Amino acid sequence: MKRLELIGVEGIGEVARGDSIGRLICEACAREGIAFTDGDVVVIAQKIVSKAEGQLVDLAAVQPSPRARELARELGKEAALVEVILGESRGIIRTGARALVVETHHGFICANAGVDQSNVGKRHVALLPEDPDGSARRIGEEIHRETGKKPGVVISDSFGRPWRLGTVDVAVGISGIKAVKDERGLKDSYGYELKAAVAAIADEIAAAAELVMGKRDGVPVVIVRGCETEKEEGSVKELLRPVAEDLFR
Amino acid sequence: MKRLELIGVEGIGEVARGDSIGRLICEACAREGIAFTDGDVVVIAQKIVSKAEGQLVDLAAVQPSPRARELARELGKEAALVEVILGESRGIIRTGARALVVETHHGFICANAGVDQSNVGKRHVALLPEDPDGSARRIGEEIHRETGKKPGVVISDSFGRPWRLGTVDVAVGISGIKAVKDERGLKDSYGYELKAAVAAIADEIAAAAELVMGKRDGVPVVIVRGCETEKEEGSVKELLRPVAEDLFR
Repeated sequence: MKRLELIGVEGIGEVARGDSIGRLICEACAREGIAFTDGDVVVIAQKIVSKAEGQLVDLAAVQPSPRARELARELGKEAALVEVILGESRGIIRTGARALVVETHHGFICANAGVDQSNVGKRHVALLPEDPDGSARRIGEEIHRETGKKPGVVISDSFGRPWRLGTVDVAVGISGIKAVKDERGLKDSYGYELKAAVAAIADEIAAAAELVMGKRDGVPVVIVRGCETEKEEGSVKELLRPVAEDLFR
Repeated sequence: MKRLELIGVEGIGEVARGDSIGRLICEACAREGIAFTDGDVVVIAQKIVSKAEGQLVDLAAVQPSPRARELARELGKEAALVEVILGESRGIIRTGARALVVETHHGFICANAGVDQSNVGKRHVALLPEDPDGSARRIGEEIHRETGKKPGVVISDSFGRPWRLGTVDVAVGISGIKAVKDERGLKDSYGYELKAAVAAIADEIAAAAELVMGKRDGVPVVIVRGCETEKEEGSVKELLRPVAEDLFR
């Protein structure tokens, strides 16, 4: 019987700049009696990774540019926040209805460049990690040092979507797994060769973990057990659609 | 400890027009020794629902219109297939690079109106159910009659996305749960009031189940156990973003 299990890791506590997320996870797992097994994938909410990496900005210390002020007025947003978002962005994809959808320096297209005010304290905002695949790799190595096991790592964030309401968590950084599962060329039971069969499993793993995490910060880490993933080193860049193939820019 | 478990239900076998999907699921669960518990959500691949409802079209019997022929030439697709897709569509959102993104009569924006050639036999295509929420409700009632338990039901399909490669499964029909989990207005541990905290949990449940299903037809049903969902009757329409609020049409 195919089974998948998701285990929420509580008790990580407040994360500060310089903390080793891998070590914090291992300590919390030890307290909760959770032992890593081969093939586990650890999903980590972006927020605690950003905190550990010092990716927080005090909005009071930000000088908004004239452009940020103007855009802020248009969108009904705070100018300092818009300044921070623009600093994280390669370009603006759409504005409207209080929404600012940009392409981040990593190549993600999302609202507000992933800059987020929740769970970081009232005047601060959290940025995405600078190199989220690198963050995931480092955390995987920390867990390996502590436990001898090397789980896959997915760093997740909640993204909105065109056409559908509500956020769904996606992968913003991965390590130790491939981002997609490509079943193209395999045949179904009728002999038909599968064509559109590339599943973004890193994103599906992130989405699954959100069901356990929720939006507050009590469960920032989820262990996914029993998932069939390819164990080679992957990158979230596998999930970025090339500009020329994208109909929605 | 927060845990979520996903259990793949195998042995459903070939589904034919007129079959009761609810009964087939209960029979397969009985054979595998799986008993429903309160709070379970059953995720069902759209394909078997469409088969049971006779939502198959023989492409050889389709007469493509001149418009379908022209579009088919443009996109390098089969004219009969394009004719079927147009019949399922309220309007075309984008064409290009062999892709035909439409709005279905249900209001879903997706490639090819969800019309799919895999797992249905070589010359046939499967359409989405006509009323997928109604299909989900009926299946929930069938399971209730057979077992006395009333699980939530999610009918899932694999959709592509702008900007990101790979498909992620989403909900196309639901019953017995709400589609979203709205945490707006709750406060984080810093006292900040959450603003963007509406998670599309029906979609996240569908995405999670895909990790167990895969793209071939061996595991078309997954039971999700331990998920916090609101047990009121929901609709997948909760997930459709109003046209006026959508920046990507």
